Amino acid sequence: MSIVLIHQRADLTDFKKLLQNKLPNTKIELLDEVEKPDDVEFAISWKHPHGVFNQFKNLQVIASFGAGVDHIFSDPNLPQHIRITKIVDQQLTKDMCDFVLMQCLNHLRHTATYQRNQTKEEWNAKKYKNPSETQVGILGLGTLGSAVAKTLVSRGFNVAGWSNSEKNILQVKTFSKDELNELLSTSEILVCLLPLTKATRGILNRNLFNALPNKSCLINIARGEHLNEDDLKRALKEEKICAAFLDVFEEEPLPQSHWFWKHKSIHITPHVASVTNPKTVVNQLAENYKRFRDEKSLKFEIDIEKAY
Amino acid sequence: MSIVLIHQRADLTDFKKLLQNKLPNTKIELLDEVEKPDDVEFAISWKHPHGVFNQFKNLQVIASFGAGVDHIFSDPNLPQHIRITKIVDQQLTKDMCDFVLMQCLNHLRHTATYQRNQTKEEWNAKKYKNPSETQVGILGLGTLGSAVAKTLVSRGFNVAGWSNSEKNILQVKTFSKDELNELLSTSEILVCLLPLTKATRGILNRNLFNALPNKSCLINIARGEHLNEDDLKRALKEEKICAAFLDVFEEEPLPQSHWFWKHKSIHITPHVASVTNPKTVVNQLAENYKRFRDEKSLKFEIDIEKAY
Repeated sequence: MSIVLIHQRADLTDFKKLLQNKLPNTKIELLDEVEKPDDVEFAISWKHPHGVFNQFKNLQVIASFGAGVDHIFSDPNLPQHIRITKIVDQQLTKDMCDFVLMQCLNHLRHTATYQRNQTKEEWNAKKYKNPSETQVGILGLGTLGSAVAKTLVSRGFNVAGWSNSEKNILQVKTFSKDELNELLSTSEILVCLLPLTKATRGILNRNLFNALPNKSCLINIARGEHLNEDDLKRALKEEKICAAFLDVFEEEPLPQSHWFWKHKSIHITPHVASVTNPKTVVNQLAENYKRFRDEKSLKFEIDIEKAY
Repeated sequence: MSIVLIHQRADLTDFKKLLQNKLPNTKIELLDEVEKPDDVEFAISWKHPHGVFNQFKNLQVIASFGAGVDHIFSDPNLPQHIRITKIVDQQLTKDMCDFVLMQCLNHLRHTATYQRNQTKEEWNAKKYKNPSETQVGILGLGTLGSAVAKTLVSRGFNVAGWSNSEKNILQVKTFSKDELNELLSTSEILVCLLPLTKATRGILNRNLFNALPNKSCLINIARGEHLNEDDLKRALKEEKICAAFLDVFEEEPLPQSHWFWKHKSIHITPHVASVTNPKTVVNQLAENYKRFRDEKSLKFEIDIEKAY
């Protein structure tokens, strides 16, 4: 019985030491160190090479290094009957709330414009709207979306949300699956916090933008793949969207010479809305491995049908 | 018995109409319209020409158009035994809270740097500190300062405050008059919300900056005259201060070619932290005039000794 660590982009040597401290009697190997593939029952993974899991015929659990699991489901050769877990980090949730609140306020208070005006030595006070005069729509009311909704309500925004399953959040108007257009029709700021699934890939597209009020603001802190980039370009040109705060991209880092960089209504942050704390991750993964070994229920296990 | 309206910078014709609607039977005149100076008992004023009040020998009340009254006290020829009122606008307080919260988060989350990086097509994710890891010091715990303190606490910041009179605010460590250096020694973000008085003019100076931790952040949303600009320049050079969010200036609009414009650690906004809503002002001034006429106590009257 052993654990394999898989990450296509990062060196996991330090992480392995941290995890080994928590699980001193467990065999933990990096992907290229595995001696006995048949012993591997538990994988901890982020953006693995597709098909890689199939060499471990006794693999039972794939634990994601983060809150997202789309990188696991994107593998067409995912083993049958596998169990999948994600990380739920309260600080990560809090950080996401801070980030969305900050960008909503930056939008209302013209922060980017004032920074640009400063370079031109231009004093030009602009009127602003208050949160109480502003309607925000949130796509996705999972752990993150619900927390963001509550945060925005606490600062006086009018908040509505859209989710697959019915939700009940104080002072938040919720819309169910087939009521998306109702939510969109009033959303002056639209926040995407959806999981990335077959159903949500490319959901931020022309149809969706056309259902928004004119001059809406888009905040995407979910996945770059939610967004149809060409449709965004058109929506900006047609002033359906007047500002887009993008923290995630199909290709990261965002390639040089991508048109996003130069567009003055697009505000780019380099995937920093919330960054998982390594200590929290180590503790949560070690605990879930022990629960697995002791045949207890796993924490933060994914519904394989829903894929989130 | 009449009201005079005084404003050196704005045309008050529309405001006069609004106020006349609220007080249909009261004589209301602009400064250059006054027919009988001896009838004037109530002045509504913003940045008046010094000495102007002395022509009204029966003047009893000067009502400020805004939350600040320093522009009244700056007049060396202020009439004796005058009563002074200010505006207290709850939305103005809320807007100020939003603005300070936004700038604290922008500081922690490197918003200005990312905007600058975008112009260079540079992806460069930076680490960030959470509010719970950040100590904020607030100078001034009046209506605005106390509200800002509570807002920052609600988002998880560690908050301390300094004020003339003793305050008791939940989860906020408060320091009294002679304990300023104690507050400063831990303030990673320092927020100035002091009234402008003889005692506070130029308080943001070299001595104060030297008492801060290295690489602190300054947010001034009080008055430009609180800040010694040369001392700020030096503090930035010596990295005592690593970022300054300035919304107020000695001269407004900030003159072209002022060194603030070009400094990349200074973030300029054109006095927009909170802007008074004209409707609220009209209602509050009309109500206070009626109270004066009916010999009731005035709302939001200033303590002349303290000058705020």
